[in-house]
This record gives sequence, structure tokens and C-alpha cells, in this order.
Amino acid sequence: MPNDILIKNVRPMGGSTADVLIRNGLIDQIGPDLAPAQPEAETIDGDGGLLIPGLVDGHMHIDKTFLGLPWVPHQAGPTTFDRIETEKVVRRTMQLSVEEQAAKLIRLAISKGTTHIRTHVDIDPEIGLSNLEALLSVRETFKDAVSIQLVAFPQSGVLRRPGTVELLEEAVKAGADLVGGIDPAGLDQDAAGHLNAIFDIAERHGVGLDVHLHDLGELGVHQIDLIAERTRVHGLKGKVAISHAYCLGMVDDARFGRALALLVENDISIMTTGAAHYPAAPVLRLHEAGIPVFSGSDGVRDAWTPHGNADMLERAMLVALRFNFRTDEGLNLAFHTATRGGADALGLEGYGMEVGCAGDMVLVEGENLQEVVVSRPVRKLVVKAGRIVARDALAFV
Amino acid sequence: MPNDILIKNVRPMGGSTADVLIRNGLIDQIGPDLAPAQPEAETIDGDGGLLIPGLVDGHMHIDKTFLGLPWVPHQAGPTTFDRIETEKVVRRTMQLSVEEQAAKLIRLAISKGTTHIRTHVDIDPEIGLSNLEALLSVRETFKDAVSIQLVAFPQSGVLRRPGTVELLEEAVKAGADLVGGIDPAGLDQDAAGHLNAIFDIAERHGVGLDVHLHDLGELGVHQIDLIAERTRVHGLKGKVAISHAYCLGMVDDARFGRALALLVENDISIMTTGAAHYPAAPVLRLHEAGIPVFSGSDGVRDAWTPHGNADMLERAMLVALRFNFRTDEGLNLAFHTATRGGADALGLEGYGMEVGCAGDMVLVEGENLQEVVVSRPVRKLVVKAGRIVARDALAFV
Repeated sequence: MPNDILIKNVRPMGGSTADVLIRNGLIDQIGPDLAPAQPEAETIDGDGGLLIPGLVDGHMHIDKTFLGLPWVPHQAGPTTFDRIETEKVVRRTMQLSVEEQAAKLIRLAISKGTTHIRTHVDIDPEIGLSNLEALLSVRETFKDAVSIQLVAFPQSGVLRRPGTVELLEEAVKAGADLVGGIDPAGLDQDAAGHLNAIFDIAERHGVGLDVHLHDLGELGVHQIDLIAERTRVHGLKGKVAISHAYCLGMVDDARFGRALALLVENDISIMTTGAAHYPAAPVLRLHEAGIPVFSGSDGVRDAWTPHGNADMLERAMLVALRFNFRTDEGLNLAFHTATRGGADALGLEGYGMEVGCAGDMVLVEGENLQEVVVSRPVRKLVVKAGRIVARDALAFV
Repeated sequence: MPNDILIKNVRPMGGSTADVLIRNGLIDQIGPDLAPAQPEAETIDGDGGLLIPGLVDGHMHIDKTFLGLPWVPHQAGPTTFDRIETEKVVRRTMQLSVEEQAAKLIRLAISKGTTHIRTHVDIDPEIGLSNLEALLSVRETFKDAVSIQLVAFPQSGVLRRPGTVELLEEAVKAGADLVGGIDPAGLDQDAAGHLNAIFDIAERHGVGLDVHLHDLGELGVHQIDLIAERTRVHGLKGKVAISHAYCLGMVDDARFGRALALLVENDISIMTTGAAHYPAAPVLRLHEAGIPVFSGSDGVRDAWTPHGNADMLERAMLVALRFNFRTDEGLNLAFHTATRGGADALGLEGYGMEVGCAGDMVLVEGENLQEVVVSRPVRKLVVKAGRIVARDALAFV
């Protein structure tokens, strides 16, 4: 167990000033004038800053990043299919170590205050389980600094790449926490078949699912119906997420309402990056209906995009800009997508800034949560399970 | 005249390594192994960094910012009209010094590497010329650190607020560089009348125009026709800009093509902020047609929006994200909107990183221009007309 940490003179969640004692990896006390109980406790002056819970990056691809390498010009054409094929060629040429690259991105995420990650990891007949094995190893290396959920992700499709179904099941047996999917109709040309395959694996192994859905308009929403139906039939309520779901921003109110009812009934979460160039799932309406809405970095400097820096406060800002959130309510919802919304979607236990919650938190300068979204201040201190893992934007691990 | 500045070991525009000598406020030499000609010259080690021209923030509202004040929750409703009215009420209550507030924002912009600003300044029967007078004074204060163009901006409308036409003319006589306008149809309900009034003033005083156009779809594009026609009739070719012009992203190819032909014929510039929540003028197509496309911060932490930080490299990133620019060509175009595109739209002379250009430049770490857009590095040095005005993100003025 780590030593106690006493953070004095901070404002948890932007509320009134208090001291916060972290003990045995949990928030032990919040109150005025706390004293360290252990002689070896570390005492930190929070200097009136804000204490927020560890950020949740709910959608990464940490096996793909080019971070720290010389500039790689983006080469792919505009479609998902182009990007899948181009990535194959580019990565084959580059011969990268997935483990080394992933470690760079994880350190960056930690330095930005991320304490929980859900990452997809490519599984296909060419890659096999090698990316997964690399990430399992990296997860072990960083286990005291960040929690990582791994989604076995059929980036190249499920049915169109024979052998992938078996590999996805192997991946779950080897340690993947969830099964992924991608555009069952648009990429695999067999929505029912694709979904049947991945839901079968999930049910058999008692794991959740997180499905990439870029398919647009009616085609996308139709697949939300199919996903919801299978969530019910396979008894996976509360264990399924849909990532992107641009389509929810493209249909009329009545059609949206029918999809929403299914999402609510099956407690399906929705992930949005707030992508600026595309339609977007209406975050506010989903949130108001009780859907866990969360966000993530998605690709960071990889063959899919040259953009990204794994900063979930910046992500919250991008979500706010995408949805035109200007009021305090809106900015707080943007913050929610990078914190509690992610915790809900990922099924994290003990998440939050109350006594008894996990000792996962970030110290920043700022007046209130809204201002933190707008200004994205330096992470002065990042604590994971009661250990200091980053200070002044530098990760120690 | 300032002393010479010799910046050694830099890569102008991301090209090969050279030294750059700035003398009498201009770029005097670029080459290997330059030596200071003056004993009192300042020699700076560029450490292999990139030297880029001073950033151009082509659309600000520096008379409006709440920067540095306690958090002001956003209160306005969703329409332009709501925001105009709410701002009136909020600012009346707050009793701010426009001069003090503007100085904060200008310093921030300088610290981010901005060397040229075009700002709109509110003119209406209630405010009169007081905001303009404040900005004229601030412009004088900062004249060695940043160049500022002032647009006499009828924020509350022209015809619907009697007396505004006369005030706009007074503003130009008092020192405003351009005349503004705003949604001639949507706000003033008289597109022709509004435009006739502002074009008359512009022609009479030989100044340019920069018109806010939020009106959407066909209504917006119709007004582009009207603006182009008046640009021709009043002999103002090359002196007119349209800000936002969301409508250009909302009409079909044929309609867009007709508007584009008029824009090209009259050399009208288009400003986009890359707003993520709205349709957008198609930057790439406009640029390819030869239109100067530029960008700007727009409001920074004011009654219109809580967002913004006056960082034009971040703005370039937001433009890139909005238009899904991932290739080097796209990222370079995003950079262009914050640099050369702004210089062209603002009619700046001697802009660029070649010998003979103005000594306005920014030193940053980065591999190439594309990477600078993606990573938005700290501005290590900002030089304006041969004077160092900021170092390590801190403005000296």
C-alpha cells in the first residue's frame, strides 16, 4: 500500500476549500484542517486549486500511435475502408514495436490526468493476437499508474476476414475485457452475421461489447436497433457501448426517439469524440434520457489521424465546441463526458471525489469545472490509487 | 529603430537550417553562419526550431472580453438576437473598462505569437464611439508590439438602431480602418438598405468592409450576391471580406459555384473560425479558387462565448478538425488561414519569411508546419517589426 497523501487547501469539484486525505488508495477524509496520520505521509499544498477525479479516456487505440516518431504524412483516402487498408501498408513498412509506442502514449495520457483508459486493440488474421499481447504486457507495466480496459477490436472486419471470429474469442480468453465490432453493415456487408458473432462471444465469456459504428443515417440507426435487440436477448444490459454513432444526429425526431428508447431500455452507452467534421450523436438529449455518454481521444497521431494529444480536458472542450455548449450546464456536461460519464460507461467502481471513492484525482488551477473545460490547465498533480504518478505535466512512470 | 536581432540555427517555414538577421525592422539576411553586424545586436540560439511569420488573427472582438475577471456564466439564448440583447444587459451591469480588458487580450494574443489583428469594435447609439476611442488608445499603446485594424461594427444592427449609420461614418473619420456589417437581412430585415448604407460610407472614405454573415442557406448566399454586386459598383474590389459565411457550406454545387464566381471576380475574402457546431464555408474549394481564406479567434471569453484563448495555432488546428484536414496539404492550408491567408485578406505589405519582409516572426519547436498545427507548441520567441515582444509565452508589453 502506498503512503498516505494529504492534499491541503483544495476545492474538490470546485466546491468549498478543504483538505483531502488519501489512505490505502482511497479517499479517507475530506474536511478542514486535516493532519497526516502517518509520519511518512506526503503533504501537498493544493494552493486553492481544484481537485477533480481522474480523467477517463473511454476510447483509445494505443496500439496504433506514431507518437515520438519523425512526422508521418497522412496517406489514407477518405473512407473507413481506405484507412484500414492504408494503415496496413504503412505499419508493415514501419515495423514498429507496439509495446514501445503504447508506452509513450500511456505516459502522455497519465501526464494529462487520465487514470482510466478503454483502448481498442486490433485483432485480425495478419496481426493475430500480437498487438493484444503487447498491450497486456504494457498494461501490467503501468498497472499502478493507470487502469486499462482492452477491447478485442476487429479493425479489418469480422466476416470479411475469415479466422477473425476465432481470434476474437482467443483474445477474450487471453485477457481482453470486451469484444469490439465495426460497421457490421458498411464494412462487413452483413450486419446480423457480424453482430451475432461478436454477441455470441460476449455472452459465452460474460464480457461486454464496444462497437464502432460509423455507418450513417438510417443504416446506422438500423444497426442500433440490431445491437439493442441482441443486448436484450444475450442478457448484456448495461454492458454494451456504441462508439461514434454519428447516425443518431442524422435522423428525424421520431426515428431518434425510437432508437433512444432501445438504448435506454438496454442501458447502452454512447461514446462521442465531438468530431467537428461530421454529424454527431446529440449528447445532451442522450444524457437527459439517462444514457451514459462518454468521450475519448480516439487515434492519437497514427495512420488514421495526425491529430490528438490524449488530453481529456481538451477533449471535453472539443465536445463543448461541437455541441455548442456555452452555458455552465453545457460545459459541465462536457466535463462529465470525460469523467463520470466514462466511469459509468466503463462500469468503474468507487469513482468520484467523495469519501470512500478511489484515490484517483487530478489537481489543477481553475475557478470552477466550467473554467477547467475552457482553459485546460496544466495537471499539477495526478494521483492514481493513492500514488502520485505525475506532477506538473510530467509522468513519473 | 530597434537593434539588430540575429536568430541562429533555425528552420524558416520548416525548411533547411539557417541564420536569420533582422535589421531596421525587416528580414535583412537569411543564410548560413551570419554574424551580427552591430555590437549591440541580440543573438538568439534558435536551437533548430521553426521560424514562422507572425500569426494573423483576422477576426477578434477585443472590446468585449471578460478575460481575467471572475467566471461569468454564459446567459444568452441561442440566437444572434438573444446574444446581442444579453450582452447589452450583462455589460451594463459589469461596468467594465474596455481599455483595461482589451489590453489583457492583446497581451495574450502577443504571447501566442499574433503580430497582426483585425478586430471589430461595437458601434451603436448607446455605446457611441466610446469602445472605438478605447481601442484607438490601446492600439497606440501597443503599436510597437502588434498591428491592429479596427472595423466599425454595428453589432446591434444598422437600420434598426437609428443613428447608427451616422456613427459608423463618425467612426471611420475617427480612425476606424474598415466598416462592418451584420446579417443585413436576418438582423436588420433590409438587406439592400443595410448594405447600401455601409458601402456608401466605405466608398466615400476609401476604406474596406468586413461583414458578419451568419444568415444561413439561400438567405445567406443571396446576400453574398448583394455584397459582391456592391463591391463592383462601389469600386471596392479586393477590399471586402465576409466573416463566417456558413451559408456557403449549405447550398448545392451549382449555387455555390455562382457565389464563388462572384467572390473571385470581386476578390472578396472569407473568414472562418472553423466553428464545430455549424455548417462551414468550404475552405479548400475557396482557397483553390484563389479566394483569400483566413481565420480568427472571434470572441474570447465574453458574453457571446466562454471559450477562446487567442491562440491562432490552436485556431488552425480547429480549422483542420472542422474541415477534416489530415494530409500535409490540408494541415498546411489550416496553417495558411492563420498566416498568409490573413495577410492577404488584411492587405498586409511585406508579410512573409523572405528577405525584405517585415521582421514579424515566431520561434517554435516543431518538425514542420504540419506538426506545428497539430501540436501547437509554446511560442519561444515573438518578434514584431524587429523587436522581441514575447519570450516563452510571456508578452513583455
